Amino acid sequence: MNNLNDKNPKNIYTSKKKIIDSIIPMEKDFAKWYTSVVTKAKLMSYSEVRGCMIFEPYGFAIWENIKNILDFKFKETGHENVYMPMLIPESLLNKEKEHVEGFAPEVAWVTHGGSEKLSEKMCIRPTSETLFCEYYSKNIKSYRDLPKLYNQWCSVIRWEKTVRPFLRNLEFLWQEGHTVHTTPEEAIEETNKMLDLYADFCENFLAISVIKGKKTKKEKFAGAEFTCAIESLMHDGKALQTATTHYFGDKFAKAFNIQFLDKNNKLKHAFQSSWGISTRVIGAIIMVHGDNWGLKIPPKIAPIQVVIVSITKQNEILEKSKEIYEKIIKYFKVKLDTSNKTPGWKYSEYEMLGVPLRLEIGPKDIKNNQIILVRRDTREKVIVPIDNIIEVIFETLDNIQKNMLSNSHKHLNKNIITIKNYKEFKEIAQTKTGLIKTMWCGSALCEEKIKEETGLTSRCIPNEQNFFEKNCICCGKKATLVIYWGIAY
Amino acid sequence: MNNLNDKNPKNIYTSKKKIIDSIIPMEKDFAKWYTSVVTKAKLMSYSEVRGCMIFEPYGFAIWENIKNILDFKFKETGHENVYMPMLIPESLLNKEKEHVEGFAPEVAWVTHGGSEKLSEKMCIRPTSETLFCEYYSKNIKSYRDLPKLYNQWCSVIRWEKTVRPFLRNLEFLWQEGHTVHTTPEEAIEETNKMLDLYADFCENFLAISVIKGKKTKKEKFAGAEFTCAIESLMHDGKALQTATTHYFGDKFAKAFNIQFLDKNNKLKHAFQSSWGISTRVIGAIIMVHGDNWGLKIPPKIAPIQVVIVSITKQNEILEKSKEIYEKIIKYFKVKLDTSNKTPGWKYSEYEMLGVPLRLEIGPKDIKNNQIILVRRDTREKVIVPIDNIIEVIFETLDNIQKNMLSNSHKHLNKNIITIKNYKEFKEIAQTKTGLIKTMWCGSALCEEKIKEETGLTSRCIPNEQNFFEKNCICCGKKATLVIYWGIAY
Repeated sequence: MNNLNDKNPKNIYTSKKKIIDSIIPMEKDFAKWYTSVVTKAKLMSYSEVRGCMIFEPYGFAIWENIKNILDFKFKETGHENVYMPMLIPESLLNKEKEHVEGFAPEVAWVTHGGSEKLSEKMCIRPTSETLFCEYYSKNIKSYRDLPKLYNQWCSVIRWEKTVRPFLRNLEFLWQEGHTVHTTPEEAIEETNKMLDLYADFCENFLAISVIKGKKTKKEKFAGAEFTCAIESLMHDGKALQTATTHYFGDKFAKAFNIQFLDKNNKLKHAFQSSWGISTRVIGAIIMVHGDNWGLKIPPKIAPIQVVIVSITKQNEILEKSKEIYEKIIKYFKVKLDTSNKTPGWKYSEYEMLGVPLRLEIGPKDIKNNQIILVRRDTREKVIVPIDNIIEVIFETLDNIQKNMLSNSHKHLNKNIITIKNYKEFKEIAQTKTGLIKTMWCGSALCEEKIKEETGLTSRCIPNEQNFFEKNCICCGKKATLVIYWGIAY
Repeated sequence: MNNLNDKNPKNIYTSKKKIIDSIIPMEKDFAKWYTSVVTKAKLMSYSEVRGCMIFEPYGFAIWENIKNILDFKFKETGHENVYMPMLIPESLLNKEKEHVEGFAPEVAWVTHGGSEKLSEKMCIRPTSETLFCEYYSKNIKSYRDLPKLYNQWCSVIRWEKTVRPFLRNLEFLWQEGHTVHTTPEEAIEETNKMLDLYADFCENFLAISVIKGKKTKKEKFAGAEFTCAIESLMHDGKALQTATTHYFGDKFAKAFNIQFLDKNNKLKHAFQSSWGISTRVIGAIIMVHGDNWGLKIPPKIAPIQVVIVSITKQNEILEKSKEIYEKIIKYFKVKLDTSNKTPGWKYSEYEMLGVPLRLEIGPKDIKNNQIILVRRDTREKVIVPIDNIIEVIFETLDNIQKNMLSNSHKHLNKNIITIKNYKEFKEIAQTKTGLIKTMWCGSALCEEKIKEETGLTSRCIPNEQNFFEKNCICCGKKATLVIYWGIAY
């Protein structure tokens, strides 16, 4: 990423003023703020195909960092990577009834290969359960073959009607884990374990506070027994589901005939899970952390963690900047900007890109053997001695990471409101954004009624079930669950 | 990869004899030998879709190692990763005449999205020149925006008639670099530089000796001014092109209107290159190094570099094996196999998988504080003291890597024959495999005549042009080039 700006002079950013002017404040129009940030921070570009975006180097580098960390965690927990074909014959997609009903309306169909019409049309994978199941049905014979803990990184296509960069696209990048087990308990354990892994990743790497929970039957994955999800809260008070894990029971195993001989030589159907996280999570990073100066990238996944800006082109300043660059490049992802642009231009540019830490070096600093540190999260400026700069950067990046998580956590908690009365629920739904916590009887009828009358959908049934009322918020009958409602991306 | 076998007991490998029996000797039937190795070494499985294979964990791990090394080298040389959509609208594919003629007959067409017919059909990328060019035409304005040095890792689809695992598939994985420059010289330099990078990678990491050269006009990439390639020679004497780089001149820039303002404020068309290597290279690894015991994976890309086999299940042997595992796992990719399978079974299994180095530990070895080392390349057995085992492994893996390259180099040189007489050429073409080196006038007529009369195609015009005759081997007119002919995969 070293020459990002030198190679891509952005003509629209000709002065500091121009950049700042060009972002629409999020308080004014959150959707427009979002769109201006994703394009101006050069995360993506629009392509010729509706809903298929181009990942620019800076946006793709963030995804690569996310991918590398997760891939390490998956392997550490015993998973192996494979790659399945991108095409699914129609007959294969049709094998599990609920699954095909959920996905068939939104797939891209390949009908011709070269100049010939195919005898059976094929879809581009919207997800790969059917391919994995077909493979497993052929390759699993005995309990000794289990568990199978496979994962793949790939792109998928879903023919969405409305699209938004990162949040909803026809094509997106993701990973999908598909596992097979001898018992329901083991498959459920995997479903929960991977939810924990995703939640831990979101909090400790993306600095995004999340709620872990189950989706309602209405909101679960097509074909799953149940779906777990982590929900996070954006700056505008809307919720975003950042990752999901699914327990399939033996439904797919029965549809695809995935059987194994157990220890007593009895033939049994296997139990499965699947789990995924996609480039959508980049949308969450933007909307949880960003502000009116642009992105804020958490240090642990930042393509550039530290930028060094030389304030003037004086030789001794250039030399000192270079010297510091050489000193810290072994420890951090650093960019040195000695270009001719004005310091103001550079400050705005790297704030837009969300670079966690900026070092400024001017004539006065050299004289005093000091350097100016500017944090992106607080925009706080401090002067520090050059000598122990490495320790200071380590500490500051660590503080930034923690502070970003703490802010996300505070924002989430501040925007959860517990409601015990349906009239109040309806009022609050009109006037406030955020998550509403209520008791619920568990019936789909109440869920639908609430959606109709308030516009809110169920977000998740949190793992922590602390009952605070006896009755369902909607029908007044016996409550069985604590649940969150909200408006979702 | 640690539990590869424990998790995947392979029922067909029930005894040492059975494994060895199950490979068809390469001298008997090379094609069948190849197919039995790719499946028995668990590199891939066949899928429901003709020509789309499944990358099994072991095969995919090899690709991941290749990818990681190359990705590092690309970034080190200033390239950045991006991701373009997988779909190309028909009108976009049609923009460059030669390119569309080359690729349109072999693409998969998407005609429907969900239940609706598309107003314009789209193909799944067979390669992404058109997408990159469209992007560049919008994003390049000035010489300051250049060079653009972008790369992407993705899967592509080409609707091939005949298919073979890794060598020719409907879908394969690859990387494609696409660069834009201000001058032809700079774009040509990039084309040559990337060819050198690929050649260096093949020799120093894959231990495959290669010839660098240019393709003839007939064999070049559809739309390129010229194509460079590296050619390698398989055990059966057939050639395999392992990577290509293309110089486009300003042909695509003119078709897609990629223009920039130069330093004198004049509008100019840009010059481009592209370059790629695919999962096909795994086919080369198999066919250059493999033998009748199975794969031989070069240590530098091996998912398992060292396997430790405990010969009996005695406690002290298991403990010692574990102790050695703990000692060396920090330095190498190691698998410890303490399963109940017989030593013979294990030996055959890891030879099949091509694990470069096997350590055997038995009761006698513990008594003598020694260990048995077995090299996969030479199948040579040596007894070494346990104490300086780390140094010995480093040295042995290094020797294996070097020896494999040396063997590939010898095989290549032994199978190049220089011919000055057309009658002899025709005879040799019928009786011997390998590469035939001749002089050539450069005309497509001679190239076609040779193909018709001998069955051989031009492989490449080597960078090293040491003329050894004045006349073309075919027409007898003035020769302008040294060229290699052969049968290719």
